Amino acid sequence: MSAHLQHALNDLKKRILNLSARVEEAVQKATEAFETCNAPMAQEIINCDVLIDMAEVEIEEECLKILALHQPVAVDLRFIVAVLKINNDLERVGDLAVNIAERACFLATRTMPDVPFDFGYMATKVQKMLKDSMDAVVEMDVQKALEVCLADDEVDKMNALMYDLSRQKLTEPDVDAGCLLHMLSVSRHLERIADQATNIAEDAIYMVKGEIVRHKTEEYTR
Amino acid sequence: MSAHLQHALNDLKKRILNLSARVEEAVQKATEAFETCNAPMAQEIINCDVLIDMAEVEIEEECLKILALHQPVAVDLRFIVAVLKINNDLERVGDLAVNIAERACFLATRTMPDVPFDFGYMATKVQKMLKDSMDAVVEMDVQKALEVCLADDEVDKMNALMYDLSRQKLTEPDVDAGCLLHMLSVSRHLERIADQATNIAEDAIYMVKGEIVRHKTEEYTR
Repeated sequence: MSAHLQHALNDLKKRILNLSARVEEAVQKATEAFETCNAPMAQEIINCDVLIDMAEVEIEEECLKILALHQPVAVDLRFIVAVLKINNDLERVGDLAVNIAERACFLATRTMPDVPFDFGYMATKVQKMLKDSMDAVVEMDVQKALEVCLADDEVDKMNALMYDLSRQKLTEPDVDAGCLLHMLSVSRHLERIADQATNIAEDAIYMVKGEIVRHKTEEYTR
Repeated sequence: MSAHLQHALNDLKKRILNLSARVEEAVQKATEAFETCNAPMAQEIINCDVLIDMAEVEIEEECLKILALHQPVAVDLRFIVAVLKINNDLERVGDLAVNIAERACFLATRTMPDVPFDFGYMATKVQKMLKDSMDAVVEMDVQKALEVCLADDEVDKMNALMYDLSRQKLTEPDVDAGCLLHMLSVSRHLERIADQATNIAEDAIYMVKGEIVRHKTEEYTR
């Protein structure tokens, strides 16, 4: 590999890690703003999303430049294609953090109905999946990536539980339905962030093994 | 461009068009199954999703093969990167069609609450966006792609309307809250399909103009 290509790939790795750090922080702050009814903190996430969008576009342009200039093959080519997809996934996670922040802004003005659901636990799980999926990319750790794929099932179950609790709660008289729908949305957005983390983990496996494991993680983890 | 590369690109175009035809059909049938309470039709969509998943993996492998073997540049390189992303988007649309079909299976067993919302109109809009976005890719038609981006706003408004109607309906006594939440999900899934069509349209613009218009479509359409 030429020194130029090596340099370009190292730079690309730094950029995608910077983006993921920014996105992880957005998710963490958005869920904190929701849990603590902190509207100014939520508004900050919404305002800062433009920086995530800009970083995504820059990284994609960088990938194309490297493909065109250095025409990498084998593991380097797979790395760049994986970065292209992870980049996309991270930007969508940023959007989902914004969605949670928007719900947090609304809910900060209301008294939330009492639902026996532990959002904090779900948020911690999802944030760990996101962090682990990026660690799996950096450390080329297939085992860690598979653990992320498995954790997704648990998050899906939590979202299904929140759905059931909401449905029951909605049968009570005088419940604030609008509020409850917003809370259900937060659980759904967290579940979608977990899906994106799973996508990233699958790309990590692909990058290392050169095999696309999407749609067949179950075979791997049997 | 070598004859081999030309042949490989033509083949890739055919494959992505086959996939989009399959995905468009899944969306059309899923919404029809929902509207007509046709559980067997919905089950068929769920069963056939594995074919969409397989096609996605094959197309991605084909893109990588072309990148490694032919090291295309300029517009050919952009075409392949666009196909990689569109491929991903189409697979997600397939998943959303499955989500709608799952709701349709559930709802076919119940009497849906009466909500003054035209799902048929929304579904037609969304299907047109999906078709137009793929036409924009094939015809390299920037104008058509921009129209798709604009149409997304209207679909967002329809989803917001369904949300408001659900919130009001939930305050009525004896309403079937579970049913209503499933109906709200269908509107949300349709809205996400429109988002994916917008992503595809943005990739069409990028492919033609070599400029990433994501996050700045508004500048373009002013």
